[in-house]
Amino acid sequence: MTFSTLEEFANLVRSFPAPDETAIRAATARNSVLTKPPGALGRLEDLAIWYAGWRRDVQPRLENPQVLVFAGNHGVTAQGISAFPPEVTIQMVANFEAGGAAINQLSDAFGAKMSVHAIDLDRPTEDFTVGPAMEDEECVAALRVGWDAVDPAADLVVTGEMGIGNTTSAAAIACALFGGTGADWVGRGTGVDDDGLNRKAEVVDWGVSLHKGAPLEVLARLGGRELAAMVGAIARARVERIPVILDGFICTASASVLHALSSTALDHCVAGHVSAEQAHANLLAKLGKAPLLSLGMRLGEGSGAALAIGVLKGAIACHSGMATFAEAGVSEGG
Amino acid sequence: MTFSTLEEFANLVRSFPAPDETAIRAATARNSVLTKPPGALGRLEDLAIWYAGWRRDVQPRLENPQVLVFAGNHGVTAQGISAFPPEVTIQMVANFEAGGAAINQLSDAFGAKMSVHAIDLDRPTEDFTVGPAMEDEECVAALRVGWDAVDPAADLVVTGEMGIGNTTSAAAIACALFGGTGADWVGRGTGVDDDGLNRKAEVVDWGVSLHKGAPLEVLARLGGRELAAMVGAIARARVERIPVILDGFICTASASVLHALSSTALDHCVAGHVSAEQAHANLLAKLGKAPLLSLGMRLGEGSGAALAIGVLKGAIACHSGMATFAEAGVSEGG
Repeated sequence: MTFSTLEEFANLVRSFPAPDETAIRAATARNSVLTKPPGALGRLEDLAIWYAGWRRDVQPRLENPQVLVFAGNHGVTAQGISAFPPEVTIQMVANFEAGGAAINQLSDAFGAKMSVHAIDLDRPTEDFTVGPAMEDEECVAALRVGWDAVDPAADLVVTGEMGIGNTTSAAAIACALFGGTGADWVGRGTGVDDDGLNRKAEVVDWGVSLHKGAPLEVLARLGGRELAAMVGAIARARVERIPVILDGFICTASASVLHALSSTALDHCVAGHVSAEQAHANLLAKLGKAPLLSLGMRLGEGSGAALAIGVLKGAIACHSGMATFAEAGVSEGG
Repeated sequence: MTFSTLEEFANLVRSFPAPDETAIRAATARNSVLTKPPGALGRLEDLAIWYAGWRRDVQPRLENPQVLVFAGNHGVTAQGISAFPPEVTIQMVANFEAGGAAINQLSDAFGAKMSVHAIDLDRPTEDFTVGPAMEDEECVAALRVGWDAVDPAADLVVTGEMGIGNTTSAAAIACALFGGTGADWVGRGTGVDDDGLNRKAEVVDWGVSLHKGAPLEVLARLGGRELAAMVGAIARARVERIPVILDGFICTASASVLHALSSTALDHCVAGHVSAEQAHANLLAKLGKAPLLSLGMRLGEGSGAALAIGVLKGAIACHSGMATFAEAGVSEGG
């Protein structure tokens, strides 16, 4: 299964596989006889059953998580919408490759294989206040970077990003998909001041007024390469029946493109956290996703999602490893 | 340093050591030059600095967490306040020892050494609606079980519990320490119905009316042995400068006894989660503790705190492992 145009990618999304209802039923039954009061593990129980459904396994393991970090450069930085200069993107890619970033430490801490995919950093996307950020073919190429980066042997995927200027791109995508104004969707990103925030809102309003269209057209015209790559990776994970933990605002805005194509397209995704980026909570609400963590993080890189690997590991360890009442000889409540 | 009476224990609590201000300053300085926008790791940054202060190490490691599960039996179960029969306590202890409980899986998942300490299960505490749950000497003995269970070489302690009836005991302690009525502090525990909930509230009101006194007298007269053991373990951890993750309602109610003795006595503790047990959020607010996780868990055993080990591990991994701007050659924002 593959794609060479945006239309083919859209068709692929609309024919995504569903979870395995047999595994969901079996996992639900198993959950009900584990040595704990009914429901006492809260969301961990739902997570384990959800994971079992996608992995088609009543007692699944989570042993091979993959963290993918995509990086891109943004022409819209010319509009003065970031607290950091655009050369930080390539500097941070070097930091990822040397093992010095937060996402390296978090990937190591949770036993995840992490890779960084820098996409044409020497060729920033077009400033979307001037023209489309990407031509369709460029967007397809970026989707393919993400698609190809997923290891089919992984049992969990986290998608993260680095790209100075990309909260502005993400806000523009969210605004184009869900309506409202730029001010509803922008936030401080890496730390712009009030003037920068107002500028971001104006830039988003202008970009959205220029670029209307179907969801993948929105992605191409307002997005960045790393955002498109996350879309491609999340789609590939679905096809491989690998659950995904979504990261913060930029990841979630990218994932929203899939949701706009098909309302069930993100059923294999859980929200790892709600970030401190102003509009993230609202965006998660639009997608009907309740975050696992709420720790005021706003770093990107996949960091919030990587931290949530621990929660998912705990959930699956309990579900697959606990004794049943019968096995343990424990009396049930009444 | 040790104790053989409740008074000696109280004096010990009132002379608890403070964190290392030099390490806190050095860790704060280090945090400010790591390759991320200022504050972008949210609460992870505060956690790492807090941990560095207690460990007296600007770049600490978290490699040897210890999970302690204490079990006790409660005479107050005679009042029909639990959905499970009291023999489940000993059955669950066997399950802990065989590795089949949730806390076994979570301890394994986060690399923690877990031990279970069953305290005089054949000798339940007195029904506190009839007389004091424990004599002072019994309470001292239970405090000592917890005190002695802490491994001085551990770098993190989680305290958990098992004891049919112990949410009632915990609610009574909270009510005696913080005021209000039984109805303010009881919850459904392992799953009592509305009648059971009303009975719990009445039992708490009656117990609190019978047993007034200083914090450790409250613990002895309304508590259980596993609650006193958690108090002892949390105190020992402080003396050894080992940070503690608090678990749910029962653990937090026990810890409140230390807080009542000294308002800074829980400064080495972080709240692992807020449980679904009704009064836990209120109890955490009384202690000024913001939970790390909110996942609807209500199992006890230390399970919510054990899950939060992952968050703390992630925080410390980032703080101690990340490159600085200078090391990585990354430009700072402005």
